[in-house]
Amino acid sequence: MLNVVILGSTGSIGRQALEVIESLELDCRVTALAAHSNYQELLEQCHRFSPSRVALVDENSALQLKESSGELDVEILQGQEGLIELASDREADLVMVATVGFSGFLPTLYALRNGRKVALANKESLVVGGELLAREVPEYKELIIPVDSEHSAIYQCLQGEKRESVKKLILTASGGPFLNTSPEHLPEVTPAQALKHPNWAMGPRITIDSATFMNKGFEVLEAGWLFGVELENIEVVVHPQSIVHSLVEYQDGSVLAQMGTPDMRVPIQYSLTAPGRKSNSFPALDLNSQSLSFHEPDTEKFPCLRLAYEAGKTGGTMPACLNAADEVAVELFLKGIIKFTDIAKYVEMAMKEHELVSEPSLEDIIEADRVTRNELKKIVARLG
Amino acid sequence: MLNVVILGSTGSIGRQALEVIESLELDCRVTALAAHSNYQELLEQCHRFSPSRVALVDENSALQLKESSGELDVEILQGQEGLIELASDREADLVMVATVGFSGFLPTLYALRNGRKVALANKESLVVGGELLAREVPEYKELIIPVDSEHSAIYQCLQGEKRESVKKLILTASGGPFLNTSPEHLPEVTPAQALKHPNWAMGPRITIDSATFMNKGFEVLEAGWLFGVELENIEVVVHPQSIVHSLVEYQDGSVLAQMGTPDMRVPIQYSLTAPGRKSNSFPALDLNSQSLSFHEPDTEKFPCLRLAYEAGKTGGTMPACLNAADEVAVELFLKGIIKFTDIAKYVEMAMKEHELVSEPSLEDIIEADRVTRNELKKIVARLG
Repeated sequence: MLNVVILGSTGSIGRQALEVIESLELDCRVTALAAHSNYQELLEQCHRFSPSRVALVDENSALQLKESSGELDVEILQGQEGLIELASDREADLVMVATVGFSGFLPTLYALRNGRKVALANKESLVVGGELLAREVPEYKELIIPVDSEHSAIYQCLQGEKRESVKKLILTASGGPFLNTSPEHLPEVTPAQALKHPNWAMGPRITIDSATFMNKGFEVLEAGWLFGVELENIEVVVHPQSIVHSLVEYQDGSVLAQMGTPDMRVPIQYSLTAPGRKSNSFPALDLNSQSLSFHEPDTEKFPCLRLAYEAGKTGGTMPACLNAADEVAVELFLKGIIKFTDIAKYVEMAMKEHELVSEPSLEDIIEADRVTRNELKKIVARLG
Repeated sequence: MLNVVILGSTGSIGRQALEVIESLELDCRVTALAAHSNYQELLEQCHRFSPSRVALVDENSALQLKESSGELDVEILQGQEGLIELASDREADLVMVATVGFSGFLPTLYALRNGRKVALANKESLVVGGELLAREVPEYKELIIPVDSEHSAIYQCLQGEKRESVKKLILTASGGPFLNTSPEHLPEVTPAQALKHPNWAMGPRITIDSATFMNKGFEVLEAGWLFGVELENIEVVVHPQSIVHSLVEYQDGSVLAQMGTPDMRVPIQYSLTAPGRKSNSFPALDLNSQSLSFHEPDTEKFPCLRLAYEAGKTGGTMPACLNAADEVAVELFLKGIIKFTDIAKYVEMAMKEHELVSEPSLEDIIEADRVTRNELKKIVARLG
């Protein structure tokens, strides 16, 4: 029986995790749940899973949950501290961090500091905080099971292998909705077009990040920290069918790949059963009549991928700047204030103006995030 | 330091194994070598690798080796008994069985009985003798590392996984030279055309067996014994590019695949270093610009695949009949006596006439082999 804590239980990953636990009757007990502010759904989840504790980041929502929870036997925590307390629970066998944004970093850090296994679905924790985490919890690599489909693929390909046998990691990218759009038409694409991902249904920011290849850049940085591989040994290959989820090339020339239908429930389930597996009734992959193609990404057309590598190689607070600038730029694009091609332009500007702090503390990272957001908004206001 | 015995050292696999050991400076000592009759090459190998013992199946060749070995400090054995003695050596850490035909079964059996690890490149040992081997050495699965590229691929995909997590094995088939030949033209194809394999350079029988899909059928039966998977859970998919060497589908819908350039040195090397790996300078796979296609095999056009499944499901001496009939039929085709499409026809006839022995002894298997060959030659003489 696995005691599981799920942070971000009302988000897309959290919901699917609960669905998987319930429908597959996994040998799990959901001991705690946390969400940002959706107290109605959290209440409904309390009825279904009877956690002993829950937390809501938003304090008003926590109050409302307290009022509506009635006879329910559940302890209700609030704020970021609430999440951290749940993440630190030494009775939890696995903490799934499925919150959005860099706020997922602290619960991840606390869970790992307490020697908990973490099923990590929060990208920013490693993209922005990887360097800090590596200093604070040197053994973190042994404790994290990735939930992202690409990283889950690599994790599966690495089972039973020695880390020193790895030559390179190869992340696949669907290429997003503009793979075949000519570069001169890119400035005109609309948010509605950018939000139509060909293969995966995801939240708005990650969908835009997929369209710009920034998401793949984040995944490269994340993979570097997760698997302890240098960025020059991590490649991206465009694979429009999203059937091969990622690959590992070994020293002897052997390449292992993990494949499947594009269904997030599979890597979510794996993070709960690894290294074991359990059968499910999700649609299986039928290789027959498949044709899988692969080609190099075009970093001229999609400069965000190059910027992410640069930020990762620079290290320090640069990835925090990259992430903050991208978040602001994506928001401005979604509001129709800047063009699609401006996203990379503004991120590059922010990175150029960034005052780098090496070996940053948590405060340095938070400050880099804050300053980048403010400065970028000023730049856009000035130029716009 | 791994003490390695190589049986079949002057054949294609044996030679490449020695090349790999030498060029990669693997941490191996070649303690014994054996060949059928090529004493000149075996002598040359003695000079390069200084084995303490060698064996030649052909007794005249063994005599000639003794005469030409001069000052060389090597013990020379002869006959099938010589091979068995080398295979049984309890100082050997790994016995590579790379001989051709069912004669590889006895050395394999003796090596396994003595608890030796076996790098198995001899198909017939398991196709024909799998049932007997499973009875004689119940723990054989833990001791065999496959050398065949498809089985090596599956073996690699199974590392770190639990056997009960496996849903099915998927063997890839290049489809051979007649994949796109229309069925009505198949009866006219010549041995020269059949000997042109699109991706792999191999001996004549296995190349013809690839053209008829019988080779893939043998591989299905071999995989069944190697990995303890029922034949109904082993599928064949045609993949003309021979980049994906085979795949494992797990219970949760995840599919792991092993890929690489079609180069036998890679699985040979892996069988010597597994579960570790070592870097080499063989051409690496470049996924960029690759397009990989998959489709179902046509068992109407290539009935040998269906016959192999049938023989495997029947069990007993039927796989021995299948193998013997195929060997005779391929020989007759290569001599221009029967048509390409007659190979399957005669194999099917032989299987229909075969007097099945269940739970066969070694003698039963040898007798089934002998009777099938004689009967089939009679049938062909009568019909031809």
